[in-house]
Amino acid sequence: MPERVGDIGEFGLIRRISDLLNREGIRSERVTLGIGDDTASFLPRSGYEILVTCDCMVEGRHYLPKYIRPFDLGRRAMALNISDIGAMGGKPLYALISLGLKAEILVQDIEEMYRGFLTELNPFGASIIGGNLTQSGNGVFIDITLIGEVEQGRAVRRSGAKPGDAIFVTGYPGQTAAGLQLLLLAPDKSKLLGHPLVQIYNTPSHRAQLGEAIAKAGWATAMIDTSDGFLGDLGHICEESGVGAELFQGKLPVSENLREAAPVLQRDPYDFILGDSDDYELVITCQPQNVALLRSTVTLCCPVPLTEVGRITGAAREMTLIMPDGERRPVKPASWDHFRFNKD
Amino acid sequence: MPERVGDIGEFGLIRRISDLLNREGIRSERVTLGIGDDTASFLPRSGYEILVTCDCMVEGRHYLPKYIRPFDLGRRAMALNISDIGAMGGKPLYALISLGLKAEILVQDIEEMYRGFLTELNPFGASIIGGNLTQSGNGVFIDITLIGEVEQGRAVRRSGAKPGDAIFVTGYPGQTAAGLQLLLLAPDKSKLLGHPLVQIYNTPSHRAQLGEAIAKAGWATAMIDTSDGFLGDLGHICEESGVGAELFQGKLPVSENLREAAPVLQRDPYDFILGDSDDYELVITCQPQNVALLRSTVTLCCPVPLTEVGRITGAAREMTLIMPDGERRPVKPASWDHFRFNKD
Repeated sequence: MPERVGDIGEFGLIRRISDLLNREGIRSERVTLGIGDDTASFLPRSGYEILVTCDCMVEGRHYLPKYIRPFDLGRRAMALNISDIGAMGGKPLYALISLGLKAEILVQDIEEMYRGFLTELNPFGASIIGGNLTQSGNGVFIDITLIGEVEQGRAVRRSGAKPGDAIFVTGYPGQTAAGLQLLLLAPDKSKLLGHPLVQIYNTPSHRAQLGEAIAKAGWATAMIDTSDGFLGDLGHICEESGVGAELFQGKLPVSENLREAAPVLQRDPYDFILGDSDDYELVITCQPQNVALLRSTVTLCCPVPLTEVGRITGAAREMTLIMPDGERRPVKPASWDHFRFNKD
Repeated sequence: MPERVGDIGEFGLIRRISDLLNREGIRSERVTLGIGDDTASFLPRSGYEILVTCDCMVEGRHYLPKYIRPFDLGRRAMALNISDIGAMGGKPLYALISLGLKAEILVQDIEEMYRGFLTELNPFGASIIGGNLTQSGNGVFIDITLIGEVEQGRAVRRSGAKPGDAIFVTGYPGQTAAGLQLLLLAPDKSKLLGHPLVQIYNTPSHRAQLGEAIAKAGWATAMIDTSDGFLGDLGHICEESGVGAELFQGKLPVSENLREAAPVLQRDPYDFILGDSDDYELVITCQPQNVALLRSTVTLCCPVPLTEVGRITGAAREMTLIMPDGERRPVKPASWDHFRFNKD
């Protein structure tokens, strides 16, 4: 019978995880103490700021356990933290993994989840240096703290956008939202697991290498990842920078997959692009005279589509969608809110 | 009607927490970016290692919501992380708070919990620089990542104990375990909330200032906090140092409160001292010739009882309790394990 967490206990599981990390993870010279003491420790590089973020995924709320493999779940949980470090222009270094588990969970599923974490961390030479295991009341949670670094003064914040700046987005936001809807609405979900939008939902890309290159080049005035949806995160830039935004609907990037899926879902593809979605693309603002330099930075770094979708305005916190016929529609972020009571 | 989390939503709650931290928290000059961007950031001090730990408290598992005020819950959750930083000899600097909440929770209870966090952090000049809020499936969890610093090369690990070293413990371990048993067994629990052992259980002390002083002085060969119980954590020192330990039962510190409560609980007070307990005292080992120097370091730092309870031996991983009549009893850590299936 396959081993369960309750068979080997907390300390047994810690040993299994440590062994796996020793075999398959990367050891950084700057880590002075890894798993197995009261704390982990590392030696920071002089001339660098430390970045730190944490993000939590809760079973049933942020993922559907039946429709995602433990390996992909690990990748996704780590990718969304890497995305945050990248959106500041930083490089991921060290992760701490705090898990709320149930005794019935298979040990091999936990190991596969850690392989998912490492699949995302290893390309950066980043490693898992600590964490915590606890039994959760009901339902698994995966809380990751990710530490990174950025050259002192080079972090790209939400607060630097100025009227007149061009607004860019990487990739195709909205695809993961459509993937989730496909999963939720399909009568036979198992048939959908190979659908490209469902795959993108389960293992979304981050743009951390690109974020780091953009910060180093220095042409971006503000940057954020689209974890609260494109409008939600552009809204954060507007809020923190005290500006507004005009978007041209005709310029928003619609992927072929989304164009095909939208009618099946009886939805406008732009609903997905603008609304809640877990895509982890980057929204970037840049002065008009630096647009060509930003584009060449992206071309030199990674083969990621970069689309100019609008411009920053002086109308604080007002976002407007300009339709192909010139109609101007005020838009608001319909961003994911974990708590708000349903007012219906 | 008092406001609930679901009334103000995730972003409303973030604003309320930010306002509270601005009013009542401490602002550190080295924090280059606090709450409100993709990550927080800070500038590390050169010549210092960064320490990082995380610990999670789950409702119903690590605390009894009916018997602890939100303020005390915040203090306790932070104290146990501060204890880990202190047990390395470090100083706490920055916390990230990841909460799994329910929409029905009162906003004022969350604010009180943050006041509890700050009550523990402010004396160190430490601050909350980030976090995450999410809706939990069932039951609240509080996951804290705490970052600290220690002078390069000064961290006191679990792995440095040598045969012949004296073993010390601070304070009175076992008191929180007795406090918990009182709460669990009492027919009318509300009457017990003022009992000193219950108060110690709800808001245990940490010894972080002392840990930092001990690391700076340099006389300790190993140090750990008693979060897995005295024997559990002495066992970690034995395991990591490849040594054993002899303990003298007659020397173990029994507090007056524990001496009185043990017969009421029909238990031997030494069961509490040696077994599972959430006391966050320090276990320290020290070469015999440095014992007087260690003692004077403690006296100069803080009015904390420091008791010599035994010595390190060369018998790897073997722990022996020596009774007043000279009888030698092998002992094993009966340490808290979050997962192991009950074999009964």
